[in-house]
Amino acid sequence: MKLIDGGVCAAQGFTASGVHCGIRKSRTKNDLSLIFSAVPAVAAAVYTTNLVKGAPLTVTKRHLAAAGGRARAVLCNSGNANTCNANGLEIAEQMCALAGRALDIPAEQVIVASTGVIGQMLDIAPIAAGIPALAAALSAEGSAAAAEGIMTTDTVRKEVAVEFTLAGKTCRLGGIAKGSGMIHPNMATMLVFLTTDAAISPEMLQKALSGDVKHSFNMVSVDGDTSTNDMVAVLANGLAGNPEIRGEGEDFSAFMTALNTVTIALCRALAGDGEGATKLLECRVTGAAEEQTAKTVAKSVICSSLLKAAMFGADANWGRVLCAIGYSGAAVDVGRIDVAFRSPAGEVAVCQNGAGVDFSEERAKEILLEKEIEILVCLNSGAASAAAWGCDLSYDYVKINGDYRT
Amino acid sequence: MKLIDGGVCAAQGFTASGVHCGIRKSRTKNDLSLIFSAVPAVAAAVYTTNLVKGAPLTVTKRHLAAAGGRARAVLCNSGNANTCNANGLEIAEQMCALAGRALDIPAEQVIVASTGVIGQMLDIAPIAAGIPALAAALSAEGSAAAAEGIMTTDTVRKEVAVEFTLAGKTCRLGGIAKGSGMIHPNMATMLVFLTTDAAISPEMLQKALSGDVKHSFNMVSVDGDTSTNDMVAVLANGLAGNPEIRGEGEDFSAFMTALNTVTIALCRALAGDGEGATKLLECRVTGAAEEQTAKTVAKSVICSSLLKAAMFGADANWGRVLCAIGYSGAAVDVGRIDVAFRSPAGEVAVCQNGAGVDFSEERAKEILLEKEIEILVCLNSGAASAAAWGCDLSYDYVKINGDYRT
Repeated sequence: MKLIDGGVCAAQGFTASGVHCGIRKSRTKNDLSLIFSAVPAVAAAVYTTNLVKGAPLTVTKRHLAAAGGRARAVLCNSGNANTCNANGLEIAEQMCALAGRALDIPAEQVIVASTGVIGQMLDIAPIAAGIPALAAALSAEGSAAAAEGIMTTDTVRKEVAVEFTLAGKTCRLGGIAKGSGMIHPNMATMLVFLTTDAAISPEMLQKALSGDVKHSFNMVSVDGDTSTNDMVAVLANGLAGNPEIRGEGEDFSAFMTALNTVTIALCRALAGDGEGATKLLECRVTGAAEEQTAKTVAKSVICSSLLKAAMFGADANWGRVLCAIGYSGAAVDVGRIDVAFRSPAGEVAVCQNGAGVDFSEERAKEILLEKEIEILVCLNSGAASAAAWGCDLSYDYVKINGDYRT
Repeated sequence: MKLIDGGVCAAQGFTASGVHCGIRKSRTKNDLSLIFSAVPAVAAAVYTTNLVKGAPLTVTKRHLAAAGGRARAVLCNSGNANTCNANGLEIAEQMCALAGRALDIPAEQVIVASTGVIGQMLDIAPIAAGIPALAAALSAEGSAAAAEGIMTTDTVRKEVAVEFTLAGKTCRLGGIAKGSGMIHPNMATMLVFLTTDAAISPEMLQKALSGDVKHSFNMVSVDGDTSTNDMVAVLANGLAGNPEIRGEGEDFSAFMTALNTVTIALCRALAGDGEGATKLLECRVTGAAEEQTAKTVAKSVICSSLLKAAMFGADANWGRVLCAIGYSGAAVDVGRIDVAFRSPAGEVAVCQNGAGVDFSEERAKEILLEKEIEILVCLNSGAASAAAWGCDLSYDYVKINGDYRT
């Protein structure tokens, strides 16, 4: 398997585009994106667990059910979440109908998503005006434009793609993602759209995606706030020509590996571009008696506001790691916990058997001044492990969210 | 019942003191506090649920058990949490022995607590040197000095006391508290010491305290981080002369009302002095089908980083309130939720039946620029209610916690 360029257009038969249609007043970035498959694709999706759900999610679920788990296109706007609006469902359906007309496909084959402010009516006029240009702009080089069109407070575009082999056939799988604040996914993450030319049945595609997100997007947190509009969708159009994956086995494993490679890379990109973030944090927990224990501990550490602020300040305040492990709810033997910090500048052990060890503050500072920090926790109680991704808490997080809407 | 001065020394027979003994290098504030009862007092306490527990908590539990639920003194230092240290228990026992010697009481009658940085050895030397002066300084005017000695990043002392009547006898109940960061109590809060001259049995005192904290300290959150050293302790020395409360009834209800008045006032003081806070937030949830639903919703709203940042910016971004309700885990009917913001400057309705309503942004801004903001949520599904207290998320929270230790 190798990393390749092309993002959501890397797989055969997929084109994409992004335009500025006017939902955002500023013309500096796109606000409407489209992904299109030349042939009908198998589709799978996972959605936010927030009880308050964006209207586009309800419409997408309805469409995937009506179209037998198949889709041709993904339409997504930024600048407005189309959530908590009286006419939200109607607007989301209109978006699909407009895209269907422009692409000459049934509206039911359109996946729709929105991101931005909650509780303000989404005007269909700029979208209706922008869709013809959006459809006309579809191209195999359009991934970057589409990735830009779904961004909100993101500072960088997030695109990843890989090439891998299934039964002798070269397959590709790629994706785009957005997500910077209100990121604490549970069953899905902000917005992630994945495409592949591998042939795979709807059941196995959903199984692959649902299995993957538990270890990828569900292990990311920027601020503990699970969005109302989280969605991960994957389209598989089968143009690679491999025998359709219909069950578990070598091919499914290879597909899962490719999927996981792309999703973990997107997770790191999401976390590293968390609102106001200056550092990517990765908590790796090893030596757990059970995987769930490792996951609970890793996510609790990543979510601690106090630890996040300490990492911003490059302060090796490992007591906050122990504190977050202690309140995580996981059953751990506190007296066996080891903690170390690692970065490209080196590694420093700070806690062994639940108590502090002597270390050089100067050395720790050097390590923590890097842009990617690993917090290594060993529970010394078994062989299970897990990782979680997050970011530091900075002045800019407060700035961005203290005046996001007005 | 009326509010009175005197804090932890308001009740008859209680004296207190605070000194700077040298745990903190800076001499600008006290770092060692003592509360003393002239006669043995019934004692009850609740502790953090964090699996990583400060050594002083373990020693205090042991002492209360050994002394039959009675105590004469509370000794507390700031500047070092005495947690995650190999010799923590030993140091905590030494602190009690030293206080016992100075006060001529058994070490088992001393409640001990510590707050400050985790994982650094606590040197007994300055404490040993400071205790004689601390004991000599005990006075009925010492509540403020003691309240100062337990502060860490707190910016104001927290003292409250009330006077009430039990069976014709005038009783008093007062307390001091500290807590500014790592505040998300679960069964207890940071450090709260309460004294009363009411006569009450050990069982009923523990029942009163355990019942109270569910509605008071457990409903406060500054940053979602449950400390390793949370403790609330109450001493009742019976000097008011009322017939001892031995069961439920009118007297117990009157005592609970007095206790709750003091604890809620301390909760508001803790939340309003959250690290970096510029505003006190109170989320009042009404119309819930069950009390637990109301509590879950209120606490989820208070804990949302995004909402906290919006309140810092005086931005009426009510979508974040809905979002936090939606991921709280409480079973609510989203389509029935009403939300309003209220402050001394007025009240503005922002959401009805789960959807936005027109409101004046200018008016909302005026309301949110005040220092005490109520977030009013009505679920329109029953008669249960709850309140939770928190604070906004500001640049200063990041500043304080980005460089707390070094």
